[in-house]
Amino acid sequence: MNPDTSQYKHASREFHPADTVIELLGADGKPAVIGGDYCAVIAGPCSVENREQITGIAAAVKKAGAVFLRGGAFKPRTSPYSFQGMGKEGLEYLLYAKKETGLPVITEITEISQIVLFNNVDIIQVGARNMQNFALLKELGRIHKPILLKRGHASTMTELLLAAEHIMTGGNDRIILCERGIRSFDNYARNILDLAIIPALKQKSHLPVIVDPSHATGLSRMVPAMAKAAIAAGADGLMIEVHNDPHKALCDGEQSLTPEAFAILMDSLQKYTELAGKKLGIK
Amino acid sequence: MNPDTSQYKHASREFHPADTVIELLGADGKPAVIGGDYCAVIAGPCSVENREQITGIAAAVKKAGAVFLRGGAFKPRTSPYSFQGMGKEGLEYLLYAKKETGLPVITEITEISQIVLFNNVDIIQVGARNMQNFALLKELGRIHKPILLKRGHASTMTELLLAAEHIMTGGNDRIILCERGIRSFDNYARNILDLAIIPALKQKSHLPVIVDPSHATGLSRMVPAMAKAAIAAGADGLMIEVHNDPHKALCDGEQSLTPEAFAILMDSLQKYTELAGKKLGIK
Amino acid sequence: MNPDTSQYKHASREFHPADTVIELLGADGKPAVIGGDYCAVIAGPCSVENREQITGIAAAVKKAGAVFLRGGAFKPRTSPYSFQGMGKEGLEYLLYAKKETGLPVITEITEISQIVLFNNVDIIQVGARNMQNFALLKELGRIHKPILLKRGHASTMTELLLAAEHIMTGGNDRIILCERGIRSFDNYARNILDLAIIPALKQKSHLPVIVDPSHATGLSRMVPAMAKAAIAAGADGLMIEVHNDPHKALCDGEQSLTPEAFAILMDSLQKYTELAGKKLGIK
Amino acid sequence: MNPDTSQYKHASREFHPADTVIELLGADGKPAVIGGDYCAVIAGPCSVENREQITGIAAAVKKAGAVFLRGGAFKPRTSPYSFQGMGKEGLEYLLYAKKETGLPVITEITEISQIVLFNNVDIIQVGARNMQNFALLKELGRIHKPILLKRGHASTMTELLLAAEHIMTGGNDRIILCERGIRSFDNYARNILDLAIIPALKQKSHLPVIVDPSHATGLSRMVPAMAKAAIAAGADGLMIEVHNDPHKALCDGEQSLTPEAFAILMDSLQKYTELAGKKLGIK
Repeated sequence: MNPDTSQYKHASREFHPADTVIELLGADGKPAVIGGDYCAVIAGPCSVENREQITGIAAAVKKAGAVFLRGGAFKPRTSPYSFQGMGKEGLEYLLYAKKETGLPVITEITEISQIVLFNNVDIIQVGARNMQNFALLKELGRIHKPILLKRGHASTMTELLLAAEHIMTGGNDRIILCERGIRSFDNYARNILDLAIIPALKQKSHLPVIVDPSHATGLSRMVPAMAKAAIAAGADGLMIEVHNDPHKALCDGEQSLTPEAFAILMDSLQKYTELAGKKLGIK
Repeated sequence: MNPDTSQYKHASREFHPADTVIELLGADGKPAVIGGDYCAVIAGPCSVENREQITGIAAAVKKAGAVFLRGGAFKPRTSPYSFQGMGKEGLEYLLYAKKETGLPVITEITEISQIVLFNNVDIIQVGARNMQNFALLKELGRIHKPILLKRGHASTMTELLLAAEHIMTGGNDRIILCERGIRSFDNYARNILDLAIIPALKQKSHLPVIVDPSHATGLSRMVPAMAKAAIAAGADGLMIEVHNDPHKALCDGEQSLTPEAFAILMDSLQKYTELAGKKLGIK
Repeated sequence: MNPDTSQYKHASREFHPADTVIELLGADGKPAVIGGDYCAVIAGPCSVENREQITGIAAAVKKAGAVFLRGGAFKPRTSPYSFQGMGKEGLEYLLYAKKETGLPVITEITEISQIVLFNNVDIIQVGARNMQNFALLKELGRIHKPILLKRGHASTMTELLLAAEHIMTGGNDRIILCERGIRSFDNYARNILDLAIIPALKQKSHLPVIVDPSHATGLSRMVPAMAKAAIAAGADGLMIEVHNDPHKALCDGEQSLTPEAFAILMDSLQKYTELAGKKLGIK
Repeated sequence: MNPDTSQYKHASREFHPADTVIELLGADGKPAVIGGDYCAVIAGPCSVENREQITGIAAAVKKAGAVFLRGGAFKPRTSPYSFQGMGKEGLEYLLYAKKETGLPVITEITEISQIVLFNNVDIIQVGARNMQNFALLKELGRIHKPILLKRGHASTMTELLLAAEHIMTGGNDRIILCERGIRSFDNYARNILDLAIIPALKQKSHLPVIVDPSHATGLSRMVPAMAKAAIAAGADGLMIEVHNDPHKALCDGEQSLTPEAFAILMDSLQKYTELAGKKLGIK
């Protein structure tokens, strides 16, 4: 037994050679798939701001080819004085946008007590700051929804896989790993996007791996280049921030693409995904 | 108003020039104090393992001059397959040791639901991995106990102060900040102990700052040098791991001092504390 | 004037909006080009080991589409007890391979006194450890050969551009910048390949930017994914280690591709380069 | 044989158990010593600016107890547009100050060709950026002067010891190692001062280890705390920047102490050195 991977009883490819493929009901009755031959784009605003905003962005990203809608309702913020998200109301607007467009939704959970509110959410996101909130991971191991697990700001690959393992030991094996940039000494961008972790994770684990170039760089002008690079490096999907009016966004506007820029990017990504031997979007 | 500190409405020295001094009832009816003119040593094992172990170590560290007893009951562990602590039973043994020795106790909390179990705990520790578990911080802002807040593995000074601010906005202003080593590219020790954050924090904030040289280095042979250096750099206290039989410790034995080595270190620290113009131990 | 870029009088795009294109005489009398519409692959062994080795590899990488041949003769090694390269003799073998194949050659310089030996070398490489060897940079500013400047292990983008500026103030403006991985806390690969620096550099500067995925990861199995990602991110070229017998290489065998693996990779890269709107190889 | 240290044939304590003690002729005919029982303070300005400046500072730091005078003549600067030092003229002023005060001098070398100018310099400094300039190290291995070797911005302990080994294989075994701060993700100070490397280095090697708190923090207000901490951690000396008029310094004024602040610090350091069982200053 390979000593490197034996510590990952559930996440290791050694014990589960085939790629994990996560399939949900997508828009227009078609399957929305991440993993294996399918590369999925998750798009939407950093935060849900109101019903019109999220529904409008949902329609725009759907049209451009996104398969999942993202939008934060419960936002973990470094400062207690920053906008903390709309909470329950934001969740309702997100689910309204889901109903309107058919796009399955993904949103971040920040504490165990919120789980009951997430019944109609399709994929639950665990953010970078909670990657080692083991109490939360344990609870998420008991539910029947895919979990998007973001790598911590300074977490090693081993720690990311062991965080997945914390969830999987509870019985929930539908985990999507997400690289979103790590801390470094340089400051030309918010974080350093570590794309080499994609082939490294794919070798060790059967779990799908996606990339969030928006949080990784913090700069919308870098998102297209890094999105393409992520696909070229073997990513199974992307999470991209799109906002109808980035300059007025309540959170992280500087890193959000406009719907127009997103549509142009999706056209490029179509070709990169084909070159990588995968299908972009709905099955 | 200084733009650097205005974001810390509660933690900033600008709004609260005097040092925060945290005083609890210590052993033998004397006050146990951290901050201001008092430098306190918190000692004990990484994990509570059984009643005899924790009581024995408590007696030994008390004799050597420790003012608080530490001991983990709920342990956040990178792997789900590592020892997770004794939980509730461990807490009972820790409180038994408190009763036997009179030493006030400090132990780590890992989720909100545990708060009710911590009624007789004197100081609640938030570990590095939970420094940005804002839901937990918010709850801890509502209780009337001092909180020991450990800096995250890769958290900036600003993030540490804002995490304290998350607690303080709830009304709990008795926060002790703790430097415990940060991530770096080198691997001669587990982490890099960042002692310069002590004068930097003391300038910006009125909160007491302590150092954990045991977790910072992961190597018991480095603990004495770094403990002395921490005091020389202006620390208001130390958190030091002591185990009666480090080689058999269930967790982090490699970084634990024996009671004998701890007693010798305390003798040295007495002199370093005097040189720093402070008193070591009980008021 | 943008305060960000005004410090780069020569390297900044502000003062020189058009891409710098470096064109040399390539194999078979055709131009070998880096920059603008041309994406060039530099390939070869870490170290020149003997005449047959370098000539054989040169023929193989030429056949697969490489435009430049690399091979170290003067090797900066962390330990004085490691193989230090063949020196002058290695340089002679490299130039022999150039004569045999027509491939222009690139090799690393480690001290000023070697400059006289580099007369027939086509591009002079400054390695990561010498990126801030300003005395060397100054001398290289006085000669008429393109310089490949590798980013230091922990150098910021600003420092890389200012190192280029040190050369350019002397009058030599044919600089190729090279990202080769930076230090981090993780150890699943040798370094973290920072691909986002490509769009960041291309925005600030007119200089061509290439990527060395071999040194960045230290693992040959990661090279293809990262080479494709680099092209997708906008790189103007790649530097890839190829060795006829990686297991017996005197230096860095673990990161070298075999000639067969390199030829397969070049086929893929052809398509990624086209998608990026560039031409791979000789004009 | 311990596999950790066997790679350091000359620097390892395994092969040379006793501390290396470096003794030079100091001011007033007394020995100036670093290592073993002696802890020496090297003080002076970042750069020599003119004869009066360096001579005045020399007299002031001598009076306060400094044993060596520092002052840069050849300055490696990130930008080619920053002040590069006075060069040869600066060296002459530094030697004039030596003659006036009797203080042995230490100054930085940046290229091999300068060695001939350093005949009357007492200790030659290799700066952080040149720690792996192996050609320079090799040349310094052939001369008979102590070398102060600064740790690179992102060099590991192993790399620092191997850089010393590069010098020592040439026959020069009088090396002083210097910790001067490493790169990290935080920016409250210029670098992170890594004091734990002191006990780590002292365990592995017999070479003296000193600390430069001025470059490490970049902030004069942090220098006293970190200087004391360095001594408490076991340092064999300190290198401290002192400038008669920090606000007008041509280089790094923000990190320089005034002569008055330096004198006050030296009084404190006297006590910390005694506590560490060492003597401060001249034998």
